[in-house]
Amino acid sequence: MKKYSNLYKDTLLKNVIPFWEKNSIDTVNGGYFTCLDDEGKVYDSDKFMWLQGRQAWLFSMLYNKVEKNNKWLEIAKIGVDFICKHGMDSNGNFYFSTTCDGKPLVQPYNIFSDCFAAMAFSQYAIATGDEKIKELAKQTYRNILKKKKNPKGVYEKTTNARPLKNFALPMILSNLVLELEDVLEKEEVEDTIDFSIREVMGVFRDKNSGLIYEFVGLDGIHEDSFNGRLLNPGHGIEAMWFMIDIGVRRNDDNLIKKATDTILKILEYSWDTKYGGIFYFMDAYGKPPQQLEWDQKLWWVHLETLVALSKAYEHTRREELITWYEKVHDYTWSHFSDSKNGEWFGYLNRQGEVLLNLKGGKWKGCFHVPRAMFQCWKSFEKIETSIKTNK
Amino acid sequence: MKKYSNLYKDTLLKNVIPFWEKNSIDTVNGGYFTCLDDEGKVYDSDKFMWLQGRQAWLFSMLYNKVEKNNKWLEIAKIGVDFICKHGMDSNGNFYFSTTCDGKPLVQPYNIFSDCFAAMAFSQYAIATGDEKIKELAKQTYRNILKKKKNPKGVYEKTTNARPLKNFALPMILSNLVLELEDVLEKEEVEDTIDFSIREVMGVFRDKNSGLIYEFVGLDGIHEDSFNGRLLNPGHGIEAMWFMIDIGVRRNDDNLIKKATDTILKILEYSWDTKYGGIFYFMDAYGKPPQQLEWDQKLWWVHLETLVALSKAYEHTRREELITWYEKVHDYTWSHFSDSKNGEWFGYLNRQGEVLLNLKGGKWKGCFHVPRAMFQCWKSFEKIETSIKTNK
Repeated sequence: MKKYSNLYKDTLLKNVIPFWEKNSIDTVNGGYFTCLDDEGKVYDSDKFMWLQGRQAWLFSMLYNKVEKNNKWLEIAKIGVDFICKHGMDSNGNFYFSTTCDGKPLVQPYNIFSDCFAAMAFSQYAIATGDEKIKELAKQTYRNILKKKKNPKGVYEKTTNARPLKNFALPMILSNLVLELEDVLEKEEVEDTIDFSIREVMGVFRDKNSGLIYEFVGLDGIHEDSFNGRLLNPGHGIEAMWFMIDIGVRRNDDNLIKKATDTILKILEYSWDTKYGGIFYFMDAYGKPPQQLEWDQKLWWVHLETLVALSKAYEHTRREELITWYEKVHDYTWSHFSDSKNGEWFGYLNRQGEVLLNLKGGKWKGCFHVPRAMFQCWKSFEKIETSIKTNK
Repeated sequence: MKKYSNLYKDTLLKNVIPFWEKNSIDTVNGGYFTCLDDEGKVYDSDKFMWLQGRQAWLFSMLYNKVEKNNKWLEIAKIGVDFICKHGMDSNGNFYFSTTCDGKPLVQPYNIFSDCFAAMAFSQYAIATGDEKIKELAKQTYRNILKKKKNPKGVYEKTTNARPLKNFALPMILSNLVLELEDVLEKEEVEDTIDFSIREVMGVFRDKNSGLIYEFVGLDGIHEDSFNGRLLNPGHGIEAMWFMIDIGVRRNDDNLIKKATDTILKILEYSWDTKYGGIFYFMDAYGKPPQQLEWDQKLWWVHLETLVALSKAYEHTRREELITWYEKVHDYTWSHFSDSKNGEWFGYLNRQGEVLLNLKGGKWKGCFHVPRAMFQCWKSFEKIETSIKTNK
């Protein structure tokens, strides 16, 4: 096996992080620009609150886990300050977007801005010991839980005629709760972990196919509707590495095994045998999906798969994971990475050509690429060390 | 020039209409199924109110303008009855979708369901002389005008920080008002036509480029934001044949000329010189658009272009229109039409391959294909007659 740990570490520290350090900081208004073209030039100045949270989290995390680099902490502070000053409405909900100088543009209509604000606050509080920010992390988390049953609030357009549960909620909670461990009561953490495992593995994971559904009925039954049939393979695979993290934390080999099986099932189902890569959306019954972008290849789907496969291999050493890892690795690194200008392209068409010539936008910021680089670096470091030790 | 009128007439009457007659009627609950696969089989039974309105309008229009065929009137009635029974909330707003038996699924969150209900009611009232339905058309139109300033109502997520006007509103009004001429006061019709021409040609049409923008500031100024830069070429071209219809009605050669120039400008800008076809979305400054599906080739974009070009040629006889017509004709007929199972495919990837193997869904019903067949049939009939006469 090649020495992947250095590849991930070097790309993180020499290619990806420098791209965001150099191009994303708004030195006038604070916060980060995320709409960056292939060379890193700002092509739109709107600020998307969930991407502000993600980048502030990322730089705090690097400071906490890689190196006590003050530049990273300063960059994290720029985002945390912007979110605190401009990100929140009077009820503690977080706007979807603002102008570059912080005027609200799009109302808080889902909980994702809130989730990434909470994650940013928590990591930043760890880095700085700032008690106020720690308290804000806790408040934000409590507010998210309050909105669990109706995350879109007044902006929910769906009636109650045929209610469905959304996978995104237990999925994000399973990651968020570990991120906020420092902030929450021990019992609360364990309860939320229990809830997430139960929902993700017991309800949204289909026992027959081993696939993860995006929506299920309140009774857990599949519904033959557009949403009821929807699969989002990247979502499912990403959630599986959250489950592996939980399995490691709890010494639960059975959970790790089940998550690993699920990764493989999803990959087999959603790999494009014609052009390579993993589809963005699929219909569980093979019907036409509603999403016109269903056949596109997205950066985060492939990066989360690399993380999931390397973690699964780290903890199970199953050979088929290596075979899959190498297949996904070859596709991902040859199609998305950009050694010339730094960071990765985000959107390819089915054939694997760059579809949007950008490094960041409304949905892509400083998050999946550097997080995956960090996660894979650490997993391969452990894998490689243990291989050396065995020799 | 080939004899296109027969092609359009035959395809309408022998291929397209039979497809919907055979496959779309819900004989149990009333209304129409629109989620039909390539062979016409129902793959989802949800009912999208705006597509119910569009099909009821289409069959009423055929009855009024092609032939007093009672089967067509019966089919129109099935839709009108379903809309009256299940489509409206207590405030006279129209749901976005319902279950197959009419339970509301998605709340009224825009005015498009209302617009197509009004059009259906009006054509159906002409066909039947039904005074109640005529009154309902008028009420629905009045309700749309009331919602002009805030068409999404409580579901509007955008703040007032940077307000933009949407092209869709004057565009749809310019067509709706002619459809409802029978129902409205003469003065009201003329006022709305004046408003539409002013907005479409004077505000949303950019004087420098000759292109139509999807959004402009309240002062008519372009905004350098994702929405402010957005072009939807098919929308612009479709609106131009509405303008030509108005120009004919008013004997306004200048309007017809301006609309024709605009069609050509948009076509030159948005034609894919690599693979052929017209892009779905573009950014006016060449920046990456927000819409992941921007490079796809959609049926309605190409059909509306054929209508626009044939109408423009009918009234101006400019030779460059024929050159463009033949180019778009060859692409459109060879890529979208399906002589085997009837109706047309809706969604192609940039390369021109079928992306979604469906004939109808959430956004495609019995509307653009048959309407364009009818419009092109009638335009070419006039063009061919006059050519014969000239000889």
